[in-house]
Amino acid sequence: MPNYIIPTEIHNALVAAAYEKRGYSADEASAAARFCELAAHHGIKTHNAIKAIHLDELFGSAVGGCVPGAEIDVCETKFKAVERWNANKKLGQAVAFSAMDRCYELADEFGIGAIMVDNAFHYLWGGGYVIDAAKKGYLAYTNCTSALAEVVPFGGKFPTLGTNPHSWSFPTQDQIGFPICIDWATSTVAMGRVQQFAREGKQLPPGSAVDADGNETRDPKNVAALLPFGNHKGYGLSLIDELYAAYGGGSLPTLRGRPENNVAGEKYSACFYFQVIHPDAIKSDNYACDRDQGANIKAVIDDMLGHGNENCLLPGQLEAQAAQATEKAGGLIFTKAEVEAFKEIAETAAHDFNADNLQEIEE
Amino acid sequence: MPNYIIPTEIHNALVAAAYEKRGYSADEASAAARFCELAAHHGIKTHNAIKAIHLDELFGSAVGGCVPGAEIDVCETKFKAVERWNANKKLGQAVAFSAMDRCYELADEFGIGAIMVDNAFHYLWGGGYVIDAAKKGYLAYTNCTSALAEVVPFGGKFPTLGTNPHSWSFPTQDQIGFPICIDWATSTVAMGRVQQFAREGKQLPPGSAVDADGNETRDPKNVAALLPFGNHKGYGLSLIDELYAAYGGGSLPTLRGRPENNVAGEKYSACFYFQVIHPDAIKSDNYACDRDQGANIKAVIDDMLGHGNENCLLPGQLEAQAAQATEKAGGLIFTKAEVEAFKEIAETAAHDFNADNLQEIEE
Repeated sequence: MPNYIIPTEIHNALVAAAYEKRGYSADEASAAARFCELAAHHGIKTHNAIKAIHLDELFGSAVGGCVPGAEIDVCETKFKAVERWNANKKLGQAVAFSAMDRCYELADEFGIGAIMVDNAFHYLWGGGYVIDAAKKGYLAYTNCTSALAEVVPFGGKFPTLGTNPHSWSFPTQDQIGFPICIDWATSTVAMGRVQQFAREGKQLPPGSAVDADGNETRDPKNVAALLPFGNHKGYGLSLIDELYAAYGGGSLPTLRGRPENNVAGEKYSACFYFQVIHPDAIKSDNYACDRDQGANIKAVIDDMLGHGNENCLLPGQLEAQAAQATEKAGGLIFTKAEVEAFKEIAETAAHDFNADNLQEIEE
Repeated sequence: MPNYIIPTEIHNALVAAAYEKRGYSADEASAAARFCELAAHHGIKTHNAIKAIHLDELFGSAVGGCVPGAEIDVCETKFKAVERWNANKKLGQAVAFSAMDRCYELADEFGIGAIMVDNAFHYLWGGGYVIDAAKKGYLAYTNCTSALAEVVPFGGKFPTLGTNPHSWSFPTQDQIGFPICIDWATSTVAMGRVQQFAREGKQLPPGSAVDADGNETRDPKNVAALLPFGNHKGYGLSLIDELYAAYGGGSLPTLRGRPENNVAGEKYSACFYFQVIHPDAIKSDNYACDRDQGANIKAVIDDMLGHGNENCLLPGQLEAQAAQATEKAGGLIFTKAEVEAFKEIAETAAHDFNADNLQEIEE
């Protein structure tokens, strides 16, 4: 089954048109397109344009979870390296790119910069923002609260936590060709994976999910909620996102993303935390064997992947391979089903998108 | 089997005497005693005074891994919220307390403060420093590289990673009575646990360890190296510590803590990263239902542990229960075997320690 190459400009114009049709400003539509390009470029099928627009329909502008044209309020603060932003439910991708840009400025001056964003809407793939930061030379980190509480606390029965991802990236591209990026949800599997296993008639891995009584199940058809990965350790990591959000303005996890569960005065939005470190701020005057910082990083990575570990992958390597394939193809690579979805998106947006002559590429 | 109560002053005087006997300055000995009190107070058996002194013997002042009386160099920097320290192998506990104190000052001014420490020696229990920070009102984080590479990268065969812990704490004591503290190694189990399972003739949990050929084993007697928890996720978390250290001056993981594997020009020391956030720097102007920050945190925690999750523990809760028991006992609680170890420590230090009349307490 061949894949198809959609030229980047055509993809981005289509995505921007779809967002403008949904009421977003040209700047917001452009940020949305830029983000979807970033995801597709790195082979991220779960958070590309098709998912982004679907999320906007389910949780976003169609139902008031996201407000096209909203303006960010940068709140007053006496603290110089951390900002507090009220995103007023502006498009998550636009907020995230702006926040990262501001974090770079803060990190350039203070060595570290952080922004806590309240009243946020889904930014899709945290890995994208931190990889982008790493490519600009920074160490970056972000966490956020997921749209829905789908995960049961360790030892519990009822889902009160999101899949709350953490994303870290390091500017290792000059040493190994790509930024290392550690980026995953704090659940063992995502709900989308459960549905996939159900379709394929497969058992879930141990520690993935519970049934309606809160008992662990490996049958995807009986899944009522997810489990954190690594027992108490993944639970703790998921809690971190909830706690950052709780400090920063996020409300009850079980209400988040569920405006239909209307409780007077409560909030239904997510929170983001962004953090960037300038590598010079943490460099040593005393690397071994007179190495500089870059050579030291290379030496450490070579040591970790030596000694019989040569076949280990580094986190971010699969995304880097996908990016290489994209660059070789000279455009973004999509499956036939995805191209069909783009046709529908174009039709809805009344945007001219001719998919008849897309170049094919072997999978 | 009863436990015994050692009055805090007597414990601290004994620990300080043991460190002074080993050549440490009065300030260093006092930091060591303060840290060991903190560990014992929270029921941390694996990183109390007995372990601390044992580590100093194995990796520390006895073999040049730690240098009594060393002075910290605070390196010049243009960055205002991040400092670079060369610890010159000064006692880890003294360095860590000093670094946290400086991070509080940075966080008070900049909202966030971070310190990267190169040429460090083991600080024992990262959770202790961040709980201490949380009790002072801050959100705190630390990571470090472990003394020895004992963990195999995901998909690998040979141990090139440390058990590289991460420790986060949040100042939740006014809401729930104790600071939430997420603090664990990135291996599924520690090597000490493997030895305990071997003694008890028990099988290890799945995903704990590999044998000499790099194949997973559950037989503690066949263990050659440990596995990261949660497969690629724990591997990624362990990598983060190695990468922070690599940026900050740490050398090859497989050489760390092994000066006997002498390679000219290489370094054998660990690195620490500390980070503190002032909660006001990330607060919202817009908590739901007119809650303030504290009330919002309480509401979020209550929601997470409601809905049938009332029996879930929060990370840090066991340590808080131990702290309560300590406070009730009016002194630090130790087993008979630990009291015997303290007698030996006292004898070595030529310190007067009378264990004959210690108050007993039921386990």
